[in-house]
Amino acid sequence: MKTKIAVAQGDGIGPEIMDAVLRIFKANDVQLEYEFVEMGKSYFDAGHSTGMTAAAKEAIEKYGILFKGPMETPKGKGVKSINVTARKVWNTYANQRDFRTLNGVDTVFSKAGIPINLTIIRENIEDTYGGIEHLLTYDVAVGRRIITRPGSEQVIRYAFEMVRRKGYKKLACGHKANIMKLTDGLFLEVFQQVAKEYPDIEASDIIVDDLCMKLVSKPQMFEAIVLTNLQGDIVSDLCAGLVGGLGFAPSANIGDNISIFEAVHGTAPDIAGRGIANPTALLLSGIGMLRFLGYSANAAAIENALLYTLEQGAHTGDFGDKTATPSLGTDAFADAIIANL
Amino acid sequence: MKTKIAVAQGDGIGPEIMDAVLRIFKANDVQLEYEFVEMGKSYFDAGHSTGMTAAAKEAIEKYGILFKGPMETPKGKGVKSINVTARKVWNTYANQRDFRTLNGVDTVFSKAGIPINLTIIRENIEDTYGGIEHLLTYDVAVGRRIITRPGSEQVIRYAFEMVRRKGYKKLACGHKANIMKLTDGLFLEVFQQVAKEYPDIEASDIIVDDLCMKLVSKPQMFEAIVLTNLQGDIVSDLCAGLVGGLGFAPSANIGDNISIFEAVHGTAPDIAGRGIANPTALLLSGIGMLRFLGYSANAAAIENALLYTLEQGAHTGDFGDKTATPSLGTDAFADAIIANL
Ligand SMILES: CC(C)[C@H](C(=O)O)[C@@H](O)C(=O)O
Ligand SMILES: CC(C)[C@H](C(=O)O)[C@@H](O)C(=O)O
Repeated sequence: MKTKIAVAQGDGIGPEIMDAVLRIFKANDVQLEYEFVEMGKSYFDAGHSTGMTAAAKEAIEKYGILFKGPMETPKGKGVKSINVTARKVWNTYANQRDFRTLNGVDTVFSKAGIPINLTIIRENIEDTYGGIEHLLTYDVAVGRRIITRPGSEQVIRYAFEMVRRKGYKKLACGHKANIMKLTDGLFLEVFQQVAKEYPDIEASDIIVDDLCMKLVSKPQMFEAIVLTNLQGDIVSDLCAGLVGGLGFAPSANIGDNISIFEAVHGTAPDIAGRGIANPTALLLSGIGMLRFLGYSANAAAIENALLYTLEQGAHTGDFGDKTATPSLGTDAFADAIIANL
Repeated sequence: MKTKIAVAQGDGIGPEIMDAVLRIFKANDVQLEYEFVEMGKSYFDAGHSTGMTAAAKEAIEKYGILFKGPMETPKGKGVKSINVTARKVWNTYANQRDFRTLNGVDTVFSKAGIPINLTIIRENIEDTYGGIEHLLTYDVAVGRRIITRPGSEQVIRYAFEMVRRKGYKKLACGHKANIMKLTDGLFLEVFQQVAKEYPDIEASDIIVDDLCMKLVSKPQMFEAIVLTNLQGDIVSDLCAGLVGGLGFAPSANIGDNISIFEAVHGTAPDIAGRGIANPTALLLSGIGMLRFLGYSANAAAIENALLYTLEQGAHTGDFGDKTATPSLGTDAFADAIIANL
């Protein structure tokens, strides 16, 4: 029997890259069925304040898995980011991003011969992302940063489980508990407590500024890092930069009931509809989703085909060696991957 | 007439590296007089809750300039970081760190042929550094993040003036105003207002996570970046990593009445007293201080001697090519610089 999941194509380049990814899935005979749901910028415009229809919400909650393209939130006071809202309403408390060197994607680090293989787990709900802020006076703005024990524990526990599942040896906790002694102090305390239950995993902690200094000089020091929301956001993007940018960075938002797999790059309205967008980040997110669903053989086959295709020098217009090989469109790039399956 | 300044040697390796730097100053006939003040870990231990004696505070306030080595704050609940306290009591609202590629200091970026030349201006007082936090329940910690209009304005204005003084063309504001709409929103609003007074400077803003991604891939995009306190702390250390670490990162804390020039690396107790510490960060901070005081000729001469010495391959044990040239001790390294004056 096929597993059914909800798919939201997203805005801008979303539909093109989603189409490419689902074609690759199909070529590998992935046993998934899709329900396409209405979610994204046009649904805000059509009057849905959350950016999705009631039917979309229902489908996502029924299937428990949402595979989504990039989405745009219309600008305007009071409009909440659709991505952040989705994480919150479904309590997808752990954001996992796996970063690895891809042969064929040149970066400062690949040129220096430093391989990247790093997973960032970011707490996905709390911290300053609650949006609790007010103007005390015209001149003074106050924001609140909230860290809770259960909120910290669920993401930290997920991180340790993930590390064990991947066969990694160590997990670091990034924090700024030397300054935010109670809030980050609580996160660190929970980390140290949970660590005791995982004596097989080497647990350490590191101040977030020092962490960023080390990530740009000796990223090999780390295997997996767990952080609070905003620091995790910053460190995730830093790591995306290490491997070539958001175009090569998958993202999974994991909750107990619902999980969301998405490309975190933008919707690139300037190139939308032109068939030239790079589907790699969405494909990597999709591969993560296949693993999560237990389709490990499909995940491995598609991942190998992707890695091999990149290694061969195939590329869309945003990366790769354009003097050696001409840029491929989205479809041709997907076809190259399919040919390597 | 000689200008008088307060000097605090610091803890651990502090006295050794301060001695090396002041010897270099002397060799270049720098017209400064020093009053050595009592400040650092041992003064906490001796019962001074701020880590400095009343006489030290008085001298610093009299001369308006403190040149300091690294300092350690004893661990313990309620003990505030001496560095952070010093910034706060004297309202040194702008933290300036200049990062540049040093020939002879190998980094991932130098290997990739990417030169770094970047100044970070960090707001130095507000944000979560107020330390206003409480435990709402055993399970919930709340911290407050405060951004004020005058606090933002003074550092942003300093940043624009600094950019103009340096002959730079542009200034970017790093922020997370898409999430912290009121607090970072206020900082960004002030940036955009002040920018209007500097039409000769290209002002832009960038979300901090995107900024970090770009800093690890195309740092050449930026000349100077101004940020709120914690984000500035993180981005500063990231940039230190780009040029070889805190051992090569100068720091200036600028206020209207008092300014502090310091090495921001640790006190390295493990190697203290062994005469092998690297004085470069403190020397670079000292060079910044000379410029600030108007001793531009001394600053240029010492800077050139340092750059030339590094280029020659001279190094302490923590960097450089040990197979090509043996590591120098602190004194011998300082002598090498003096010989190149
Ligand atoms: C778009 C923005 C609200 C979001 C975040 O800060 O979480 C993004 O940076 C991300 O990491 O998915
Ligand atoms: C030691 C610590 C409190 C300090 C800070 O966070 O400001 C340090 O990281 C710095 O940047 O000087």
